[in-house]
Amino acid sequence: MEISFSQHLLQFKYPFKIALNYRTCTPVVITEIGCEGLTGYGEASLPPYLEETVKTVFQFLAKAEKVLKEYNTPENLETILNRIEAIAQGNTAAKASVDIALHDLKGKQEGRPCHTFWNQNTNKTSAISISTPGKPVITPCISMTLGMDEPTVLLKKLKEAEAFTILKVKLGGETDFKIIELIRSHTAKAISVDVNQGWKTKEDALERIEWLKDKNVLFIEQPLNKLDFSGAAWLKERSPLPIIADESFQRISDLNQVKDCFHGINIKLMKCSGMNEAYKIMLQAKLLNLKILIGCMSESSCAVSAAGQLSPFADWSDLDGPLLIKNDLFSGLNYANGKLVLTDKPGIGVEKR
Amino acid sequence: MEISFSQHLLQFKYPFKIALNYRTCTPVVITEIGCEGLTGYGEASLPPYLEETVKTVFQFLAKAEKVLKEYNTPENLETILNRIEAIAQGNTAAKASVDIALHDLKGKQEGRPCHTFWNQNTNKTSAISISTPGKPVITPCISMTLGMDEPTVLLKKLKEAEAFTILKVKLGGETDFKIIELIRSHTAKAISVDVNQGWKTKEDALERIEWLKDKNVLFIEQPLNKLDFSGAAWLKERSPLPIIADESFQRISDLNQVKDCFHGINIKLMKCSGMNEAYKIMLQAKLLNLKILIGCMSESSCAVSAAGQLSPFADWSDLDGPLLIKNDLFSGLNYANGKLVLTDKPGIGVEKR
Repeated sequence: MEISFSQHLLQFKYPFKIALNYRTCTPVVITEIGCEGLTGYGEASLPPYLEETVKTVFQFLAKAEKVLKEYNTPENLETILNRIEAIAQGNTAAKASVDIALHDLKGKQEGRPCHTFWNQNTNKTSAISISTPGKPVITPCISMTLGMDEPTVLLKKLKEAEAFTILKVKLGGETDFKIIELIRSHTAKAISVDVNQGWKTKEDALERIEWLKDKNVLFIEQPLNKLDFSGAAWLKERSPLPIIADESFQRISDLNQVKDCFHGINIKLMKCSGMNEAYKIMLQAKLLNLKILIGCMSESSCAVSAAGQLSPFADWSDLDGPLLIKNDLFSGLNYANGKLVLTDKPGIGVEKR
Repeated sequence: MEISFSQHLLQFKYPFKIALNYRTCTPVVITEIGCEGLTGYGEASLPPYLEETVKTVFQFLAKAEKVLKEYNTPENLETILNRIEAIAQGNTAAKASVDIALHDLKGKQEGRPCHTFWNQNTNKTSAISISTPGKPVITPCISMTLGMDEPTVLLKKLKEAEAFTILKVKLGGETDFKIIELIRSHTAKAISVDVNQGWKTKEDALERIEWLKDKNVLFIEQPLNKLDFSGAAWLKERSPLPIIADESFQRISDLNQVKDCFHGINIKLMKCSGMNEAYKIMLQAKLLNLKILIGCMSESSCAVSAAGQLSPFADWSDLDGPLLIKNDLFSGLNYANGKLVLTDKPGIGVEKR
């Protein structure tokens, strides 16, 4: 199989403030893996606060090229992905871009959408199953990001989010109470809270959660510093709302640590190296009674549609990435009734614009 | 162990219409199992539309007495429950009353709440785990039943349900659209729909669900006749909202049939013979990617608190039974912030009034 890749910048509809300036875009790498006239698309998203860059992704993909050349088809997906994993530690976004492209390619070769890949064992009680190929597949309600904004901007976004049943609110500062009160004065819709490590102490976090508990809040994402596992465990024992690990959780090997510190996990393809591992995480998380949120970085419809293929297995879905950018690089991903729509288009179901 | 039992009538706050008259109450049997000065409480609820009656429960419990006399403690719960199960087919409410009383007794003997029974294997990835004993345990939001009423009564109930984030609406007739529109003109809160087999054809059901899909409806419970599995399978393939089996699902052995016809199941202790089997159903349902609703009949705080012990493993909770009756026979079960509160009181955590 042949691989090629290119870099792009995704432009935000609403730039967001960081420290002294604004962040307006996210670099991504689009990966294409070709085989017998078909092309599988993948994506690596590279927000500036994470380790990987366009350069490290390019370097990783150059190594991946050698592995992929040894195979004529993506048929033995698991074997190939194990080889890709062994290239180097970390590099999860680069790995995800290969994983997604291979899944897309496999789906196109077999003429079926990726979300049917996990349908094969419907008669075994040990395997997850979803609906029949070609028929609507139920996905969780999407939480629509409102962000941390001035009241006027917040109200504008609230109006734009009318079709969505869950509002995602970024908290972590002085304005926490005012933001929630403003939203609650306008709607009774469920709210999910993302703190992005923003609360300073476990005691302060618990106090804020206690205040939030009767405000129809579904869960609190990453209240404390990602390395503060003892704080998280303390909070898990006391919090009346579910605490979800985002920055504290990356890969399947982290489950053993997070299961005692959080009520659930935010699975993102860019963190966990792709769809193959994400599915395995979901299976294990269900047995641990961990809630599953499937999320995304700032990504185009390519990586988000890939995550969407797995969203029927999640409790909550935060796959609003393409709705927040101006220049989506792909088409074919649709939202309806506040949910992501899975179609029977082959692979991950998107076309390059 | 010694068993004793008594019959009672639970009185509804709001009587509900059935055909030509009103139903105002539900007969229940309260079972007490004693051992070394401690008493475990159980309950069998006997709504008139089901097979079991106070008489059949009394007959079953007389046979159960012989089995229980052979054991000095509820320690070997699984073995005892297997013996109870073998007494006779059916009789699931009677069996549940024994199962609940034994769980309650075991918890009291060990000085811990039943919801910690499934905590033991927190280090094994093959077992569900929940929070630390003595600390708050997260339970799902309760859906508060509004019922099928005249608009004025509906609005009164809507006001009474203010503390709840999910509204349970009974549909299945001419007024379906009007009821939903009336609620939607008053609140954006999520709605769960219970049809109780009320829709006549699968095509009509699909049409109504298509209309409901953009109304922030979480799921549709039992849209068609309980025996219409082919209709249910047809609907599962097409429905944009999850379809949950209630009357079509009773026991763990039914999972194989319902998994292809429904997106989820309503687990009730009275249907599945109690807490022991309910837990096993939950584990298997998670692996099948079936959504889990935990529900109840018209029951006092005894059986509902027992179901509550398992509710941390459920996606949705319909445990509002005690809120709908005037003469609860037990105290100790509390609701707060639209959720059931699990305490660290031993056993199922309730006291006889």
